[in-house]
Formats: sequence, C-alpha cells, structure tokens
Amino acid sequence: MPEKVDFNKTQILSLTPVVLVGCAHRDLGQNLLTIAWTGVGCSDPPTVHVAIRPSRFSHRMIKESGCFTVNIPVQSILRQVDLCGVISGRDGDKFARAGLTPVASTVVEAPIVAECPINLECKVLHIVPLGVHDMFIGEIVARHADISLVHNGRIAFQRLPLIAYVNREYWSLGERIGTYGFSNE
Amino acid sequence: MPEKVDFNKTQILSLTPVVLVGCAHRDLGQNLLTIAWTGVGCSDPPTVHVAIRPSRFSHRMIKESGCFTVNIPVQSILRQVDLCGVISGRDGDKFARAGLTPVASTVVEAPIVAECPINLECKVLHIVPLGVHDMFIGEIVARHADISLVHNGRIAFQRLPLIAYVNREYWSLGERIGTYGFSNE
Repeated sequence: MPEKVDFNKTQILSLTPVVLVGCAHRDLGQNLLTIAWTGVGCSDPPTVHVAIRPSRFSHRMIKESGCFTVNIPVQSILRQVDLCGVISGRDGDKFARAGLTPVASTVVEAPIVAECPINLECKVLHIVPLGVHDMFIGEIVARHADISLVHNGRIAFQRLPLIAYVNREYWSLGERIGTYGFSNE
Repeated sequence: MPEKVDFNKTQILSLTPVVLVGCAHRDLGQNLLTIAWTGVGCSDPPTVHVAIRPSRFSHRMIKESGCFTVNIPVQSILRQVDLCGVISGRDGDKFARAGLTPVASTVVEAPIVAECPINLECKVLHIVPLGVHDMFIGEIVARHADISLVHNGRIAFQRLPLIAYVNREYWSLGERIGTYGFSNE
C-alpha cells in the first residue's frame, strides 16, 4: 500500500452532485440555494436529502414550510448555479438576481426552477441535526423532466451536460467508462 | 418553460459519487460493498452517510459494529468497484474475489481498501430508517490519502481519475468548467 497521510478535514468527499434547492415560506417569500451536500437515501419511499446550516435563510423556510425542491442544473446555467451558492436570499430576490425563473410546483409550496431540466418536489420527512449542518430528508412526491429528455418514461441522461462538483470546482463529464454489472457479464 | 413530464421513479438523482464501503464484524468477518447513495451531511463534526438495504450482508455488520469506512476509488479499479456492487459477501470473501486488499484502520474496526487513494474511517452516529433503505450517518474519525496526492495538507483532486455514477453508468470527468465563487468575482 502507498504511504498514507492525513489531509485537510474540509475535503470530505471528492465528488458530489450540485443542485439548486427551491424553497418558499408564507411570510418570507421564496428562495433558492446551491447545495453539493445532497444525495439519495431510499428507493421506496424515494427520498433525497440536503444539508443546510441553520444560519442560512433557506433553513427556516424549509423547516417551517416542510417542503423543498431539488433541481438538476446543466452547464448552460453554471454561472447562475455558482451565484446561488455565494449570495444570500436575505439580500434580495435571488431568482431575479440570478436570472432564474420560479415555477409553481404541482404538490408542494416550494417553486421549481424552469431552467433546470429535471425537478423533484419533496416533502420533509426528517430533520436530522448533525452539528453545524442539519440534514433535511425529503420524500419525492412529484418529479418533472423536460419532455425532450424522456423516452419510454425514462430520462436519457447522456443528452444532458451535467455538472459534477469536486472540492470547490465544477467539472464536466468525460465519457461513459462502464455500465452497472459489466464486471459480472 | 419547456413542457414537463413525469419519469421513472427509480431515476432519483442524475449524478452521484460511487464509493467502496468497508465493514467488519467479530463473528461475520469483513466485507465491502459499492454504494452510490452516499454524501456529506455536516462539516463539524464531519459526517458522511451511506444508504443500505437491511437485507444486505453489510447492513448487519455496520449496525452491530458501529463503524464503516468510505474509500474513494479511481478508474484503474472500476471493474472491482462494479463487482463489489453486484456480488454478495455472503457468497465468499469479497476482498479476495475482487482482488482488493483490506488494511487495518487506525481507529475503527472496519478495514480500509489499499487500492483506493482516499479513505475515511467512520463511527456510526445515527441510523435513520427510511423504508427500503436505512441511512447510516457516520462521523469521520480518521482520514488517509496517498502521500503523493497531498500537498500542504490538501489533496490535489485534479490528479485523480475519479468516477462519477450517472443512472447505472460510470463516467469519467471531463474538464474543470468553473471554481466556486467565480460568478461573483
């Protein structure tokens, strides 16, 4: 084994998704923020979770409204995605500042983002306080994708210029290097 | 906004990490399994979580031992990574079958994987039952990286041929398309 050393504790996982999280609150309006600390927790019920600091404007909105949306961005809106991770909704309408379009969801109060080709509406199932961050685990209660992407009910992800997030850098995808189960065929 | 349609509910998130999870149990030996449903929950304490079905061999091992490791793979071991997501440890020593090397951790009982350049040792903080899957949230109690990757205490991720997982496909990364905060400079 190569010699191993410790490393900076802020470098937790190397590669993560990056998503836009939409939220809404009766008194506070609506907001969105960029989150890399997200993922899937369960297939049935289908869940997706996001980790958010209690100090963030969106934290109270999601906690009190009990819902959020997860919106998958593509490279054409990378600048907007980055901006929504840098500025605060406390300083003004972030949708307007970023030039993104909120659209009413079908089930939950939180808006989806029109410019994102895939959108998940979520109802909060659990809030897990972990320390500096709380984890909001949401059940996916509705899902939407641009009609041009869906064939026989399935999304053709290879048509999407997805964004990976690697330790404070945004990366494009290269090429498909394998398919699940290829090692056992 | 483009017309939107529903899509297959198994397509939950488009892009995720893919990691090898190591575990050990006094009576059951040791095992590893491939997980895409993983992510970061908190910066302090630093946490990482993995979602595992109760029927999986590793589920009982992690639940009863209270620990696991998260090992970041690279493309040179893609075949092994895939295999560890397909076969079960119940059918024999998965390390041996995959040709991967377990190495004793420094803090926890679960082994790390020698062939993975980054390794996180985790103690289980929470088990969140969600339905078909349980989420194990672990505090990172030790971290290791190949010495050749670490400069001034930080991992140079751009040297690593990382693997993204997109809806049952493995993808390489393309190029860096932005750095956190670039939109606001």
